[in-house]
Amino acid sequence: MSFLPQNILDLIDEFSSLPGIGPKSAARIVFFLQKAPNELSLDLAEKLKQAKISTKICQNCYNLSEAELCVICQNEGRNEDQILVVEDSLDLIAIEKTGIFRGLYHVLGGIISPMNGVGPDEIRIKELLKRLEQIAKKKEGVFTELIIATNPNMEGEATALYIQKEIENNRLLSKRVKVTRLARGLATGADIDYIDDLTIKKAIEGRAEM
Amino acid sequence: MSFLPQNILDLIDEFSSLPGIGPKSAARIVFFLQKAPNELSLDLAEKLKQAKISTKICQNCYNLSEAELCVICQNEGRNEDQILVVEDSLDLIAIEKTGIFRGLYHVLGGIISPMNGVGPDEIRIKELLKRLEQIAKKKEGVFTELIIATNPNMEGEATALYIQKEIENNRLLSKRVKVTRLARGLATGADIDYIDDLTIKKAIEGRAEM
Repeated sequence: MSFLPQNILDLIDEFSSLPGIGPKSAARIVFFLQKAPNELSLDLAEKLKQAKISTKICQNCYNLSEAELCVICQNEGRNEDQILVVEDSLDLIAIEKTGIFRGLYHVLGGIISPMNGVGPDEIRIKELLKRLEQIAKKKEGVFTELIIATNPNMEGEATALYIQKEIENNRLLSKRVKVTRLARGLATGADIDYIDDLTIKKAIEGRAEM
Repeated sequence: MSFLPQNILDLIDEFSSLPGIGPKSAARIVFFLQKAPNELSLDLAEKLKQAKISTKICQNCYNLSEAELCVICQNEGRNEDQILVVEDSLDLIAIEKTGIFRGLYHVLGGIISPMNGVGPDEIRIKELLKRLEQIAKKKEGVFTELIIATNPNMEGEATALYIQKEIENNRLLSKRVKVTRLARGLATGADIDYIDDLTIKKAIEGRAEM
């Protein structure tokens, strides 16, 4: 595509490197921006910088934050005795949108995946254990429920299992932390005809009285 | 999503306004960028600015360009007696990639679309006629072939027809410009079973000897 200015080719390349954007969509976006008023590109450029410069990570739960503590950890109305463990902030958003969970979060920042060279030390499991220990020492006699909400796939299961084992093997935490896991089963609107065996198995195992 | 920093929400909004990116993909891109090294965001920001600041429009054909004339118009090996009319630079790229066309282009910068309030004066039809007149005056006795390559839909057809009429009604141009249109017919690999009636009709009308 040497019949296009280098600047444009560079920008198409940059957009192509983002998740979910192929070279064709990248070209479409760049041409759209070139046609649009300058402000659109300049605004996007400014906001890209701002997001990087002034966004912090919450010191308590590792969610994205403007301050030392994120909006959720700052909120005194949240139940401190429940901590829900998610892979990343996107999962946190999905759960927070439902409005059903009123506890706190812990963002792992990844998932154990030997295939991709991610071990337990690369994600925030140590930080989670430390956080739980601090709670256990500070609040005598209180049980913390740790709800593990990693994705229902091999890596998510392995990570959940690893965390559960770490807590089981920890003398302090094993007595003070109750580990739970999001239910597996039929998705709303699903057609049993088309559901994979494992999901049906989990739905039968997890069946509840009506 | 007030549980996310305003900067992040702003950036997700900006990405959502780009073509082909919904709110979910926008969020995914923004979280990807937040996880990635700072350079990725800052690079993208810089290139967005550069593309806007230093990209010009070719004074001859209105393609994107680094200089007064684009790479194609600067190339003396191209056939000046053929001008291919496209809606935008994306279409130009698609045609240029095939390597089959060695003439020059004219980028309309849009398509006549009364539904969207785009009339003939909003796109570069006047500029096309002026360009053709200049060629006709400069080169005595030379015919210019004007190949119209607007998309094969209602708006593309209307635009093609409008241009053809303008040339027909122009005393100078009607004698010196031959207007042609890209062939309509079966796409490679198409299954006649599944093709719409209009395409089959066009393919029959345009049938060629073997």
